[in-house]
Amino acid sequence: MTSATPLMRPPSPGRRPGLGRPGQPARPLARFREAVDDASRKSPARFAILIFTTLILLFTAIFMLPISSTSGTVTPLADSLFTAVSVICVTGLATVDMATHWSLFGHVVIFVGVQIGAIGVLTVASILGLVVSRRLGLRSRLMAASDGNPLRAHAGPVPEGQAVRLGEVGGLLTTVAVSALAIELVIGILLIPRMLIDGIPFGDAVLDSFYYAAMAFTNTGFTPNASGLAPFQGDFFFLGLLMVAVFLGSIGFPVIYAITRNPLHPRRWSLHVKLTLVTTGILLVAGMVLYIVLEFDNPRTFGAKDAGTTVFESLFLSTMARSGGFSTIDISHLHDSSLLVTDMLMFIGGGSASTAGGLKVTTLAVLFLAAFAEARGKRSIEAFGRRIPSDVLRLAVSVALWGATIVAVATIVVLQITKAELSHVLFEVISAFATCGLSTGLTSELPDSAKYVLVVTMWMGRVGTVTLAVALANSQRRQLFTRPEERPIVG
Amino acid sequence: MTSATPLMRPPSPGRRPGLGRPGQPARPLARFREAVDDASRKSPARFAILIFTTLILLFTAIFMLPISSTSGTVTPLADSLFTAVSVICVTGLATVDMATHWSLFGHVVIFVGVQIGAIGVLTVASILGLVVSRRLGLRSRLMAASDGNPLRAHAGPVPEGQAVRLGEVGGLLTTVAVSALAIELVIGILLIPRMLIDGIPFGDAVLDSFYYAAMAFTNTGFTPNASGLAPFQGDFFFLGLLMVAVFLGSIGFPVIYAITRNPLHPRRWSLHVKLTLVTTGILLVAGMVLYIVLEFDNPRTFGAKDAGTTVFESLFLSTMARSGGFSTIDISHLHDSSLLVTDMLMFIGGGSASTAGGLKVTTLAVLFLAAFAEARGKRSIEAFGRRIPSDVLRLAVSVALWGATIVAVATIVVLQITKAELSHVLFEVISAFATCGLSTGLTSELPDSAKYVLVVTMWMGRVGTVTLAVALANSQRRQLFTRPEERPIVG
Ligand SMILES: [K+]
Ligand SMILES: [K+]
Repeated sequence: MTSATPLMRPPSPGRRPGLGRPGQPARPLARFREAVDDASRKSPARFAILIFTTLILLFTAIFMLPISSTSGTVTPLADSLFTAVSVICVTGLATVDMATHWSLFGHVVIFVGVQIGAIGVLTVASILGLVVSRRLGLRSRLMAASDGNPLRAHAGPVPEGQAVRLGEVGGLLTTVAVSALAIELVIGILLIPRMLIDGIPFGDAVLDSFYYAAMAFTNTGFTPNASGLAPFQGDFFFLGLLMVAVFLGSIGFPVIYAITRNPLHPRRWSLHVKLTLVTTGILLVAGMVLYIVLEFDNPRTFGAKDAGTTVFESLFLSTMARSGGFSTIDISHLHDSSLLVTDMLMFIGGGSASTAGGLKVTTLAVLFLAAFAEARGKRSIEAFGRRIPSDVLRLAVSVALWGATIVAVATIVVLQITKAELSHVLFEVISAFATCGLSTGLTSELPDSAKYVLVVTMWMGRVGTVTLAVALANSQRRQLFTRPEERPIVG
Repeated sequence: MTSATPLMRPPSPGRRPGLGRPGQPARPLARFREAVDDASRKSPARFAILIFTTLILLFTAIFMLPISSTSGTVTPLADSLFTAVSVICVTGLATVDMATHWSLFGHVVIFVGVQIGAIGVLTVASILGLVVSRRLGLRSRLMAASDGNPLRAHAGPVPEGQAVRLGEVGGLLTTVAVSALAIELVIGILLIPRMLIDGIPFGDAVLDSFYYAAMAFTNTGFTPNASGLAPFQGDFFFLGLLMVAVFLGSIGFPVIYAITRNPLHPRRWSLHVKLTLVTTGILLVAGMVLYIVLEFDNPRTFGAKDAGTTVFESLFLSTMARSGGFSTIDISHLHDSSLLVTDMLMFIGGGSASTAGGLKVTTLAVLFLAAFAEARGKRSIEAFGRRIPSDVLRLAVSVALWGATIVAVATIVVLQITKAELSHVLFEVISAFATCGLSTGLTSELPDSAKYVLVVTMWMGRVGTVTLAVALANSQRRQLFTRPEERPIVG
């Protein structure tokens, strides 16, 4: 680390005379490329924040247009902004009735928005992960340590350099976009027959199928029809496909990539892949069991359903709580105990560099692995035969504190504004922070001031957590001296 | 650490021929001393748990006796056990009306119980801190590093050995007990004139004054009179004295000791003392400001009071939320936003080795310092010109996860049992875990099953967090090999 600082400085523009030379035909494009290149190199986190915020403002303007709404009138700023943030951050919360408020044009904008948002998040998160791993990799190489970050494997033959170039960004963007659209296409095609069997006209069936596929893989959770998932109650095939799509979106691009490359050799998977899969599996099952135990005798949710349906829908809810945002039941009918379980599942969220939000499963895993290591008296944090360096724990602590602070502040402010029930306010705030989109119905009744609080919460939760890690990793500074050690008593 | 294991093994009893030798007059006492010595040496954490649990069972039996209640009947097991745990853990929650349910004998038992509980906790926590610091100190010495733990300063001339001897325990117990009783005596004497001015008969004034002093310094929060603090509304002198007593109890014995030794030389105070004082100060002011902002226009709390009273009572509530448990207002009249602020303050709690509960302020400080270090790109966690080793962060993460897990599980179970509001259930559970004692009134209406859940929560919160640190520190094991390093992506 001490010797990494000079290497991390970007080379001065003057060293690259091939670009922007006067009189060349590619001059304006080259200038633009260089400007983007420069911005993404100097501060990739700030660059990502800029892109996301610009997209949100652009979509806010489009949603305000009369052409976007069914009524042909201007949608108020608060609702347009909320929808734009909810779409670009693939959250799925809504202050208007998404199925009836927007025109066909509006729905196309929403469809395009979630694709841009999801692919953008996947790409940016992957790139930022690449930046971090590259820099840490560089450091590690200097320190003669091994580096097993999966993000370094999937960007093709990249030279070990200081920054990510626009060309690499383009390559990664293409890979991510093609993978995402391919998965959505397959899910969409599989959904069509089901829609046709249900007697939906062919045109609507095709549109709705791809809309559902996109909303599932991007972990957004909007439904094209006003009644939501109600027509598909008990349809294990349809709901199962949604679950698969949500799962694939929420597991994270690095994991999908690693499994695709080595589907039959789990031993070759990196620590990140194994940690993500095991933690996700534990959380899915734990959520399912808790929902069954807490809700099996609740007449308003699973009390009236048979055992098989209860188990299936509990697993469905457990999957959706992690960021999918679809729901077969009225969330406000859940017991407060189940709402709290959902709060925790939402707060944890999905995998890193995925369309899911939250702290991310590896963050939780690292925190618990640290506690286990402490309990077992081991000096190093270990998992799957590997040692996790202590700076990863510090990063996990930072992410967790960041999340807890945002949720606490937003909850207190919304409570004070609305004087609504804590269980519902906390649920909506965590759903916004973790871009989950499940709702007790409170969001649609909020005053404008509280809508803006949720807008900031969604923005912080999505853009913040994705860029926090790289912003922190980028700020590594050389330390010239070591201070004397002293240990306070904790606990 | 690698070389500490053999040194941590207790010497075999055979090496100490001076004790338990046949035919000596002191044989039974020596045997007892040796047994206690042995138990506290082999596993001080388990020894502390055993003592606390035995005390709780003993007090449960006493509270069940007809002589303990005003009505002269047997108090049900659930209420007797709840009261015993609440008294020994100095929590202050109650399922019966503490002022009217218990006879004079019962009140004496309560008075004695909180003293034993408080002095016991202070002593045990100090001893366990001593054990940890001694072992870590030994390790540090072996590693030629400095050791600035304040706990090593206040046990007099102790040889650097493997275990804490009964003699030392006795010495520390005496110091703690004398200090505690002296503080209570001074506070009690200062309270008497106020009581007399209020027209309370001399006998009752003396008894109530010392009862209040004990309940304040031990951070218990029971009131001797049925109307609680209502008669002292607006009495800044009386309430101010309670605040001072609660503050002294909650700051922690190591801090009081260090300040007493060097009252005018803050620079000589250890990192632990500085961290505790600064974090406590920030939390007190932050709590006060939040209460003022959130409650100044609430007609049921501070809305009807003038500015001076609002500021004073906000500071009072901020102090009491950290573990004192006294209240000038009806907690259930607070907005849910203020209840959530109180939840957070209670969860954090007071100083280490104090009569307060919660995670402890230094635990919170270490977590935030780690995040700040990460944000500023520093490799080491620093405060007041000192470096905090990374194993302290792991301990802080363990304590925080332990607390969050207990609170989450207890809240879900109590919610499911009672179907009460989340804001009230969460409040009572955190109040129990952090042994704070503030209540929305829900505890007194709980069914027996939920009372037992809170009993376990109080026990885990008090005995658990105090012993967790030493149990973890004691389990240090030699590591024979180093695994290859690999970093998962977090956030
Ligand atoms: K979502
Ligand atoms: K208390």
